[in-house]
Amino acid sequence: MIILGIDPGYAIVGYGVIEKNDRTGKCSVIDYGAIETDKDEAFPTRLAIIQDGMKELIEKFKPDAVAVEELFFNTNITTGIAVAEARGVIVCTAVQECGRLFEYTPIQVKQAITGTGRADKKQMQYMTKMLLGLAKDPKPDDAADALAIALTHAQTNNDLKNNSMF
Amino acid sequence: MIILGIDPGYAIVGYGVIEKNDRTGKCSVIDYGAIETDKDEAFPTRLAIIQDGMKELIEKFKPDAVAVEELFFNTNITTGIAVAEARGVIVCTAVQECGRLFEYTPIQVKQAITGTGRADKKQMQYMTKMLLGLAKDPKPDDAADALAIALTHAQTNNDLKNNSMF
Repeated sequence: MIILGIDPGYAIVGYGVIEKNDRTGKCSVIDYGAIETDKDEAFPTRLAIIQDGMKELIEKFKPDAVAVEELFFNTNITTGIAVAEARGVIVCTAVQECGRLFEYTPIQVKQAITGTGRADKKQMQYMTKMLLGLAKDPKPDDAADALAIALTHAQTNNDLKNNSMF
Repeated sequence: MIILGIDPGYAIVGYGVIEKNDRTGKCSVIDYGAIETDKDEAFPTRLAIIQDGMKELIEKFKPDAVAVEELFFNTNITTGIAVAEARGVIVCTAVQECGRLFEYTPIQVKQAITGTGRADKKQMQYMTKMLLGLAKDPKPDDAADALAIALTHAQTNNDLKNNSMF
């Protein structure tokens, strides 16, 4: 099973593609990176670039599932709106192009990767690297987060009762 | 010039299509209504329905410009995030399918239609109806708002310095 994990954003959309061996349950990395948009572009154009990037990823890797992190809201409402607009585009494109979308909260991701919803960033990066057998930290951080989201789907998709499937 | 005005939302996306006579400047209604999504559908599916609806409107009416209202944030952050996710899809689809997108704040719309940024809903409905020569109030209210947004573009597009064009 191939899983595309996405860490939503508007300047950097992290992605991580992993393959889960159906027999052993072991996960390995196929690719990771980020869709980046230029701050000098108009915001609606940046949304279109994100959509094109998502379409390309789904076409290239043909994932069996797309896993996207839900938004955790901080105090910056302006950034929050922009991230939500970008996330809407990401989620919509995943439904349209792949059809199998799963959403996880930041706490669900931490819980799945480290066993605790209170894990810090360093612990998350360590466990993501270890679970995927990587020699070095995946960069940028957004790609590492996206790999963790993909892994969360791999770890939890035997029990889908708390997740939505489309 | 054909203008498609959009009042963003996730349950109801109001739309209004008007034609501006390039010689006289007079505007007339071609169509109005709403893209509606069922609350029983999963939210990402509702976003996909909104995208499909937007694509259909642009394909059917072939607008020269799409005008979308910017978000005005109230105190309900959960609703706000959902509206922002839907608006991201609307704006992105307008850029992808039409290419000419303009955004107006609620105050710019009120100013353009009534001459004051402090107009109330009743005043807005009265002026929209009058400017478009309609016999009765356009329903739903979201469609009336969308017609006002389209009219705003018709009234102000001789002076685009304050608006973004893509």
